[in-house]
Amino acid sequence: MSLVIIGTVAFDSIETPFASSGRIVGGAATYASLAASYFSEKVKIVAVVGDDFPAEEIEHFHRRGINTEGLQIKKGRKSFFWAGKYRKDLNTRDTLTTDLNVLADFDPLIPESYQDCRQLLLGNLTPSVQKTVIDRLRNRPELIVLDTMNFWMDSAWDDLLEVLTHVDVLTINDEEARQLSGEYSLVKAAREILRLGPDTLVIKKGEHGALLFSGDQVFSAPALPLEEVFDPTGAGDVFAGGFTGYLAKTGDYSFENMKTAVIVGTAMASFCVEQFGTERVKSLSSEAIADRIRRLARLSNFSVADF
Amino acid sequence: MSLVIIGTVAFDSIETPFASSGRIVGGAATYASLAASYFSEKVKIVAVVGDDFPAEEIEHFHRRGINTEGLQIKKGRKSFFWAGKYRKDLNTRDTLTTDLNVLADFDPLIPESYQDCRQLLLGNLTPSVQKTVIDRLRNRPELIVLDTMNFWMDSAWDDLLEVLTHVDVLTINDEEARQLSGEYSLVKAAREILRLGPDTLVIKKGEHGALLFSGDQVFSAPALPLEEVFDPTGAGDVFAGGFTGYLAKTGDYSFENMKTAVIVGTAMASFCVEQFGTERVKSLSSEAIADRIRRLARLSNFSVADF
Repeated sequence: MSLVIIGTVAFDSIETPFASSGRIVGGAATYASLAASYFSEKVKIVAVVGDDFPAEEIEHFHRRGINTEGLQIKKGRKSFFWAGKYRKDLNTRDTLTTDLNVLADFDPLIPESYQDCRQLLLGNLTPSVQKTVIDRLRNRPELIVLDTMNFWMDSAWDDLLEVLTHVDVLTINDEEARQLSGEYSLVKAAREILRLGPDTLVIKKGEHGALLFSGDQVFSAPALPLEEVFDPTGAGDVFAGGFTGYLAKTGDYSFENMKTAVIVGTAMASFCVEQFGTERVKSLSSEAIADRIRRLARLSNFSVADF
Repeated sequence: MSLVIIGTVAFDSIETPFASSGRIVGGAATYASLAASYFSEKVKIVAVVGDDFPAEEIEHFHRRGINTEGLQIKKGRKSFFWAGKYRKDLNTRDTLTTDLNVLADFDPLIPESYQDCRQLLLGNLTPSVQKTVIDRLRNRPELIVLDTMNFWMDSAWDDLLEVLTHVDVLTINDEEARQLSGEYSLVKAAREILRLGPDTLVIKKGEHGALLFSGDQVFSAPALPLEEVFDPTGAGDVFAGGFTGYLAKTGDYSFENMKTAVIVGTAMASFCVEQFGTERVKSLSSEAIADRIRRLARLSNFSVADF
């Protein structure tokens, strides 16, 4: 029984107001699988790279117990490359380069050994490719989590709506929730989005935490107030990976446990932004993770016994 | 032993994307004292109006147990008037009219019966007038809370810094915290602001909740996710009034109790935005208030017993 994660495995080049990363490893599946690997020992990725992708990076996946049988390596071709520059507030970024390369004709192959998939995380990627992965699994996973972004709302609206009808949980940010629903109020936006297919919606609000909606239930999670955000790249993917990894570990998809999963995702994302790329999430101790999760609990704890 | 609140008592005219209020009663001291009156029975206001201010509004203060001996009524003059228009997102507003009228030469008089002041809330007003009130109290109150806004940072910087050296708690919003400190990170902003005088800082983030900082301690409070914000006017004043009112009721200024006070302020502000002006906060039941406070507790409750 495994947690299958699909997404990009790629190169990024990131400029922040503080520094430039040069060419580093990134991609939604990279970030999400690393984050999930701290909770589930059965993480398996579906992705594609060119033969320019460093063997030692694939080795690192293996050291973290991540199965890469579904990672296709295309001979004589190049990996997906994205270059972007963050503005001063680190909340907005401009894309400088997008070289699709191997991603242009990505046909996601599901190895036979992945057919035991119990939880599926469809990381940020072309909605039609996300849908193909669902179709190629013989049994519907117990839990399907989908992460996406505004880019697909602008360019693949119909495909996105189609894949949404097949998933259990959607994770997006607040602006994307507004765009997807056409509603400014996040409460109204959530109600509309829950009509599109998912039973559960996570709205990621960056430094303002996250909201979890399911039926009539709502949960508001804090974010860790950070002295400095060094590089926000991948934080959303790491959130989705930590969130789904914790649900895979516990096998409990109740609202109560999803709340804890949101806190786990929040804690993992707070590490991600401390250094460039995957640097920080590559090598965390379980004690450091537990410590940060307990810090989030202390941060938002209060008593209303008087009322 | 009383809670003295200084601020404006005034007329507002508000346009939102949904409706226009016409001329209604507003002002920082109005909002804050109404909110505080649900917690403290000894609220006393210091303010000034013209003789155009309706007697029945002053009567309403009395019905809520608010002492208006310090409310000067200037014969033949007009009350402060502010007209503003909210943009579509309700987060930004443009000022259409500001008629200072009686506020132009406001000299805050402290009746002898106010000299028992135990807690002082300096509502949003000219910093030098806020300072005058402190000077005119013979004994320093146990607790001084100051609320202010970006307008005074632009127009009365030195006076604001001066009065800040005399207060215990400052309440401002996130943009104002950034402006006051010159720091974008709210953690760094808080550290800088706590060097300016106050021991405790509340950063109000509207729909994103609030942060409480004191020494090395931090608390993150949720906001109630609202279906609709009808009119945000006065929400910050109501927050400050509920916060200070609860501290006055309990007389406990510990960090733990300040956390509860932030939740109380948050609950009160969530009522305020549901209708125009003071309409909603004028007549609340203690059960409705307690219910909303308990809702905030449920909204943000989670378990990390696994960690």
